[in-house]
Amino acid sequence: MQIKRGLIVGRFQPYHFGHHASVKKIINDVDELVIIVGSSKESHSRINPFTAGERIEMIVTALKNDRIYEKCFVIPIPDVNHNALWVAQVKGMSPKFDVVYTNNPLVKQLFEVDGFEIKAMVSGLPGIDSTTVRDSMFKSKGWKEKLPGCVADYLVSIKATKRIKAILETEEKK
Amino acid sequence: MQIKRGLIVGRFQPYHFGHHASVKKIINDVDELVIIVGSSKESHSRINPFTAGERIEMIVTALKNDRIYEKCFVIPIPDVNHNALWVAQVKGMSPKFDVVYTNNPLVKQLFEVDGFEIKAMVSGLPGIDSTTVRDSMFKSKGWKEKLPGCVADYLVSIKATKRIKAILETEEKK
Amino acid sequence: MQIKRGLIVGRFQPYHFGHHASVKKIINDVDELVIIVGSSKESHSRINPFTAGERIEMIVTALKNDRIYEKCFVIPIPDVNHNALWVAQVKGMSPKFDVVYTNNPLVKQLFEVDGFEIKAMVSGLPGIDSTTVRDSMFKSKGWKEKLPGCVADYLVSIKATKRIKAILETEEKK
Amino acid sequence: MQIKRGLIVGRFQPYHFGHHASVKKIINDVDELVIIVGSSKESHSRINPFTAGERIEMIVTALKNDRIYEKCFVIPIPDVNHNALWVAQVKGMSPKFDVVYTNNPLVKQLFEVDGFEIKAMVSGLPGIDSTTVRDSMFKSKGWKEKLPGCVADYLVSIKATKRIKAILETEEKK
Amino acid sequence: MQIKRGLIVGRFQPYHFGHHASVKKIINDVDELVIIVGSSKESHSRINPFTAGERIEMIVTALKNDRIYEKCFVIPIPDVNHNALWVAQVKGMSPKFDVVYTNNPLVKQLFEVDGFEIKAMVSGLPGIDSTTVRDSMFKSKGWKEKLPGCVADYLVSIKATKRIKAILETEEKK
Amino acid sequence: MQIKRGLIVGRFQPYHFGHHASVKKIINDVDELVIIVGSSKESHSRINPFTAGERIEMIVTALKNDRIYEKCFVIPIPDVNHNALWVAQVKGMSPKFDVVYTNNPLVKQLFEVDGFEIKAMVSGLPGIDSTTVRDSMFKSKGWKEKLPGCVADYLVSIKATKRIKAILETEEKK
Repeated sequence: MQIKRGLIVGRFQPYHFGHHASVKKIINDVDELVIIVGSSKESHSRINPFTAGERIEMIVTALKNDRIYEKCFVIPIPDVNHNALWVAQVKGMSPKFDVVYTNNPLVKQLFEVDGFEIKAMVSGLPGIDSTTVRDSMFKSKGWKEKLPGCVADYLVSIKATKRIKAILETEEKK
Repeated sequence: MQIKRGLIVGRFQPYHFGHHASVKKIINDVDELVIIVGSSKESHSRINPFTAGERIEMIVTALKNDRIYEKCFVIPIPDVNHNALWVAQVKGMSPKFDVVYTNNPLVKQLFEVDGFEIKAMVSGLPGIDSTTVRDSMFKSKGWKEKLPGCVADYLVSIKATKRIKAILETEEKK
Repeated sequence: MQIKRGLIVGRFQPYHFGHHASVKKIINDVDELVIIVGSSKESHSRINPFTAGERIEMIVTALKNDRIYEKCFVIPIPDVNHNALWVAQVKGMSPKFDVVYTNNPLVKQLFEVDGFEIKAMVSGLPGIDSTTVRDSMFKSKGWKEKLPGCVADYLVSIKATKRIKAILETEEKK
Repeated sequence: MQIKRGLIVGRFQPYHFGHHASVKKIINDVDELVIIVGSSKESHSRINPFTAGERIEMIVTALKNDRIYEKCFVIPIPDVNHNALWVAQVKGMSPKFDVVYTNNPLVKQLFEVDGFEIKAMVSGLPGIDSTTVRDSMFKSKGWKEKLPGCVADYLVSIKATKRIKAILETEEKK
Repeated sequence: MQIKRGLIVGRFQPYHFGHHASVKKIINDVDELVIIVGSSKESHSRINPFTAGERIEMIVTALKNDRIYEKCFVIPIPDVNHNALWVAQVKGMSPKFDVVYTNNPLVKQLFEVDGFEIKAMVSGLPGIDSTTVRDSMFKSKGWKEKLPGCVADYLVSIKATKRIKAILETEEKK
Repeated sequence: MQIKRGLIVGRFQPYHFGHHASVKKIINDVDELVIIVGSSKESHSRINPFTAGERIEMIVTALKNDRIYEKCFVIPIPDVNHNALWVAQVKGMSPKFDVVYTNNPLVKQLFEVDGFEIKAMVSGLPGIDSTTVRDSMFKSKGWKEKLPGCVADYLVSIKATKRIKAILETEEKK
């Protein structure tokens, strides 16, 4: 019997309830899921505050908590400055996959041209997106309830709000 | 209660019983283990025949088979052409870790300087190393018994011996 | 008898009547012309929708159609993230050239410092520039008459307007 | 009517009668031929003495001399340090092609996996290969008859033998 | 007796009285000072008009003029596209240092995490910053009095205002 | 009155009496000397054991000791994987220079083509070269007398012989 594998791509800055809801929906559809942690070399900037290592830790913690890690691969991939190579790079860094879940029209087109099945990604939770979460973290207010509890604990342990403030103060100065 | 995490680095070309024995020993020592898949951008060459995606698939398959995936992170890292940055890169791409298991004198020194605890890696199984396994694959003889069964099955499914032969014929020509 | 070679640089996203008019004017001035296809690694983005391979195909098709390919070299060059090396990179990737045709004040200065003859590029056709053409393609209206017929046919064959729409929808979302 | 395009890959250090014979044979088989000039960023080393620009000039000169340039594209491509991306890079930098002519077992396998037709490349001329030609150039003896006359003239004009001697003296010293 | 070394980071586009005042204040505090010339590969752009070589020449000229070069190291460092590696890169390229002088909140945090002493940089001179100086140069008015005389002389000798104008005209056109 | 500047290139792994003798000879010939520290990103390998920062520290210490630092610039430059760009990169990273001192035939040719004056480098001291010094360090015997005393002291302070041994043990294992 053949296993069916899905693939999703995100930056997960940070990994919030919206991401987690999508992952849990897809996992009902497929046998295994590859989660690509994009822009893996970026960190300590406004839109990419966390390192790949930190994001992997957030994701795996949440997956384990819901006992679905066993069905997932979590793989960091750097940006490629050559869009025409994007699909080839994902294929080289990931275990084989069959279906790509995405709402991004360009990603859709690039994988379709290469013969992959594409499905729309049912968006996670209304009103929760990474920009909003980072804003709430900057204000140190109302961010914890937007993330799985274990991810919030982890972010507290690495003093994440302090880092986000330092980054924003720095970028404002420029 | 604080979790204790170990880290090992390898290229896993391919992942064999020697690697697997080491991993299983270390896992008794620590709560969680980070397995770094090095030279992650290399593939289709004599000493790096398999892509990072393929190596991750081998490792995770074997870990799941022994029900220890739950305790592991499997993370690909490219070579850095700047040795002085190696430790920093590993720290950026990996969840936090406490102990580095290695027999490599330089890796030992680089991590020691940065304040990590170092432990010797009890070598896996005598007579099984990646070079020997690749040679056996090239001769299509006696390689399957050197790998966990599920890894051997996977390698058959991707026609690994055929690829290794094509690579060697090509490199001989040069 | 010494041959005289000109050089022009463009991104040709896409190659339109303005570019083609300039090329045809210069070709009367020199024996041979080097056409540098800049930003050769960029593709599938708003200002660089087409790959280098696609842009080379557009240009060569149009040159052949007017029987001037015999006098031209068409050479892709990636962006260099080090402006001080730009002239050296062009010299290394191109057959030797004598005159640079440009209206760009910085390109002019960089090549002048290196001892090249510089001539102004008589601009192609009023009202036709790459931005306008891409906008027309996005609206699927009035773009074909801005390009040589054979280039328009080629763009239709690769479903260029569909790609441009997918790219723009994607970038709007970000 | 559909055009049929072939593709060959070489480093052309320098472009000799063996290369030229292969090109002329293939050109009878296909409508158009893409000639990839590999390792395009390498130059001034023992196995890559000439820049991409110089190699393009050699090839185009010889093609024009035999009135077959009209049927060819000549495209420089840098080495990619990630073999799994090689086919994707060629596809992004080249006009579309249908058949790959190669005797290299790995190139054959990589393009086959991607669905291309592969044909063996009838080797050019016995006893003429790039290593031999460079050796003859180093000894300033018997090299001109191994290359098309117009290529030999070009190499004389850029003082190629003097460069090869300087490179070899330098590398011996190391 | 142990020597105490400070470190500052800047782009010095160009090196003006504000920078020079800071350097002279710090030099009273420490035995030796490492001056990192950041973004060392950037040049010929609006915010980075000068090459690293030119910036080193400006700085060293001014240091010598005040007889403090003997206490300084001037070291170019390229941008690293991986912020998590920034501190490691500086440590690899610089002689050992003890105190980092900075007002940048993120730089402060990154070095603090790594165990360095941080001191605020007493800002140089009110009203003199690089942007203002470049603007004055563009207008060819009132720029010389914002720089040490020997730096102004050097900038005149390389026709710096002419370059800045060419760059700005070019960027406006885009 | 015009200043005359010389330039030399070396890796200085480590900086020994041979290097220092050459520098002192050249300094009599020119007003100022640019010392390029090549392969600046390499470290912790057999032929490049020391970081750029460490090598700069060795050189500057020795220059100060002989009161000639005032006449020198010490500038790290990474390897460029594109030989045709080497001269352009040196020109971009270095203050302007007039004469290149070298015995390397290729370096000589590349700078000559670009119009620089070339002079032979009177070799430093017979029997002292970097390979020999590193071998002596590996054996912990007879290395200190091959280096300026202040450089030897510095190498002791960073435990250089211990590092060289760890590197060699590691590379033997491979």
